[in-house]
Amino acid sequence: MHSPQYYTTIESLAEPAKTRIVYYVADGIGGLTHPERGYSELQAARLPNLDDLAARSSVGLCEPVGPGITPGSGPGHLGLFGYDPVGIQIGRGVLSALGVNFKLLPGDLAARVNFCTLDADGLVVDRRAGRIDDETGQRVVSKVLDGLRVDFDGEIHFIAEKEHRAALVLRGGDLVAEIGDTDPQTTGVAPHYPRALVPAAAHTADVISHLIRDVKRILADEDRANGILLRGVDEYRPIPSLNERFKLRPLSIASYPMYRGLSRLVGMDLHPRTTDMESEIRALESSWSDRYDYYFVHYKKSDSSGEDGDFDAKVAALEEFDSYLPRVLELSPDVVVVTGDHSTPSVLAAHSWHPVPTILAAKTAFVDPVKKFDEGSCLGGALGIRPLVDLMPLALAHAGRLKKFGA
Amino acid sequence: MHSPQYYTTIESLAEPAKTRIVYYVADGIGGLTHPERGYSELQAARLPNLDDLAARSSVGLCEPVGPGITPGSGPGHLGLFGYDPVGIQIGRGVLSALGVNFKLLPGDLAARVNFCTLDADGLVVDRRAGRIDDETGQRVVSKVLDGLRVDFDGEIHFIAEKEHRAALVLRGGDLVAEIGDTDPQTTGVAPHYPRALVPAAAHTADVISHLIRDVKRILADEDRANGILLRGVDEYRPIPSLNERFKLRPLSIASYPMYRGLSRLVGMDLHPRTTDMESEIRALESSWSDRYDYYFVHYKKSDSSGEDGDFDAKVAALEEFDSYLPRVLELSPDVVVVTGDHSTPSVLAAHSWHPVPTILAAKTAFVDPVKKFDEGSCLGGALGIRPLVDLMPLALAHAGRLKKFGA
Repeated sequence: MHSPQYYTTIESLAEPAKTRIVYYVADGIGGLTHPERGYSELQAARLPNLDDLAARSSVGLCEPVGPGITPGSGPGHLGLFGYDPVGIQIGRGVLSALGVNFKLLPGDLAARVNFCTLDADGLVVDRRAGRIDDETGQRVVSKVLDGLRVDFDGEIHFIAEKEHRAALVLRGGDLVAEIGDTDPQTTGVAPHYPRALVPAAAHTADVISHLIRDVKRILADEDRANGILLRGVDEYRPIPSLNERFKLRPLSIASYPMYRGLSRLVGMDLHPRTTDMESEIRALESSWSDRYDYYFVHYKKSDSSGEDGDFDAKVAALEEFDSYLPRVLELSPDVVVVTGDHSTPSVLAAHSWHPVPTILAAKTAFVDPVKKFDEGSCLGGALGIRPLVDLMPLALAHAGRLKKFGA
Repeated sequence: MHSPQYYTTIESLAEPAKTRIVYYVADGIGGLTHPERGYSELQAARLPNLDDLAARSSVGLCEPVGPGITPGSGPGHLGLFGYDPVGIQIGRGVLSALGVNFKLLPGDLAARVNFCTLDADGLVVDRRAGRIDDETGQRVVSKVLDGLRVDFDGEIHFIAEKEHRAALVLRGGDLVAEIGDTDPQTTGVAPHYPRALVPAAAHTADVISHLIRDVKRILADEDRANGILLRGVDEYRPIPSLNERFKLRPLSIASYPMYRGLSRLVGMDLHPRTTDMESEIRALESSWSDRYDYYFVHYKKSDSSGEDGDFDAKVAALEEFDSYLPRVLELSPDVVVVTGDHSTPSVLAAHSWHPVPTILAAKTAFVDPVKKFDEGSCLGGALGIRPLVDLMPLALAHAGRLKKFGA
């Protein structure tokens, strides 16, 4: 996007202030024209509050990573938080561990774990162990930790997440992160061996393979959760925090572990677990104080309905997202950014590269002529079409948090 | 903004031509919606000539340095002249010395000087010495030069600027530029000691401190200008000129020393001092010849009225700026660029990061549908929203001064 000097310049200009910024984020917000109906999800939805805010603000469209790049949630959120996502790659395992608030240390190896059901031949019957409940998840994790007899010259941490999900962290012991996934992504076959993707990872593959076999031994008497599948093994390499970079004291209000992990990665505090939008907005209201000056509020349903290819469900989700906006505005934040981490058009039933409709509301924002909040209308807005990573410096500027540059 | 290769490519394609370009620049041109009135300064102003030119041209909006960055005049003008301002930092002292047409050499140390009034205890009574007139300024500068007895193994140059302002240049003597300002920016206190900001600058601090004391001794019998305050000490590091980079022979027509200094920095000739817009336009008319092919005309009042927070004065300034446009067009330049170095919204009473409305007029320009010259209208223009640094290659291309790239 920009030169490295641009980013270091922004960081050198950032200063603390008493202003507060809210990022009100609908995951996968952008859509595409429905081929029969002739309009997009945002165009179909009744969005009185978003339209009203758009009419009083600068709007535009933000490309999540770059032209043509469809981001996963990781790069999408990194751009959202002001990090050029092209230079940073974070494995799912690290995000899982951060998402359960585990205090990772640099060099830790982390993997995303699914409990699964294996048959007598060791073939995968259910990749999610029948979606065991949280309590069962907690119980089998404890059982594993109590029974482990792996010969490993380091620490093994195993943390239950939600349902069949857990995070595995290996600390010390000279490990190398280039390990293939063991999850075969299908049933009726055996899990993959944790393959070393580079020669130096052979010892690590050995350790993980032993660990998996030991877990099978410990869980042999379980009905459903009698095995584990590993994905996204990666080494934790910390990145500079939002506070270090932009002098922000950020709070994340997100219900899903993935987004909690991404929030932790950039140094946000996590609000104790919320479950739906009502609880998230309550969390925003109750944590509204001088302690924080940047609030990230994450709305998930606009993405999941888009991934399901359900146009009407996405319309309904966007209307729900709209209905909570007044409670955000009631807090009188100095800057409100409404955007997404990427588009998830229901006609594609997947994430996409299309730019994301965006509102930047502040007393210091130019009021452009746009009065509707959708993909087409935002084309006429004052923000133009620009990289998502630009939003953070713009939000900081509009909040009076960037000093003047140069004489 | 762009990769370094983009800039070297532009430079390799630039070639001389018989065409002439005028940059007609209103400092701080862009504004913001007035919260009660509902329109910006440009939207309030009657601008028949700018509107007419906009209707026949490509228009757009230019971000001075990058998203969110509020530029001082230095970075703003560097972008204007086609230099990526993020990589270049120029201290005020260097601009002052260049602005009085002093021939700086690489390595020279330059400072911006204010004569001030000190009381018997050495406290600052008036930071501008009662705004002594130019003649008095010249007299005290000569008096200082005649009387100096500082033990310094190099050259000391001291040049009167305007009223209480002067430039100080130290040449040779192994100096280091990292010296704090002595101007306390307030009255009733003593000037700061010229503090070494890095250990290597200790000797330089010592030299400057002796110099300041010697000046006080020499000026002890003056009523008003009996001391000096230093700001923006910096070392002169030349940058490639407009001629070296773009094969231009540029003339600057600017009344304020700051902009004259910036013009010199990029290798422009300076028109002998002008005082107001009438004299600047006359200077343009009288210097219109084959000798130059790039004319920079700088209008100041749109910025100063914005900084004063005076919406109506800024409207009046923009109308004055508009009224002189026909005389520019009468000369039939091949390319006319109307823009600013940054926005100065009167509702902020300060420079800002907001993009700057811009006209690019040429026979080779696409005539877009926009017929009004203001922030909102320019959103629909052919230039889009882009970095200010893009204007120079666009102006060169529209003037037939960039060769085809590649086979």
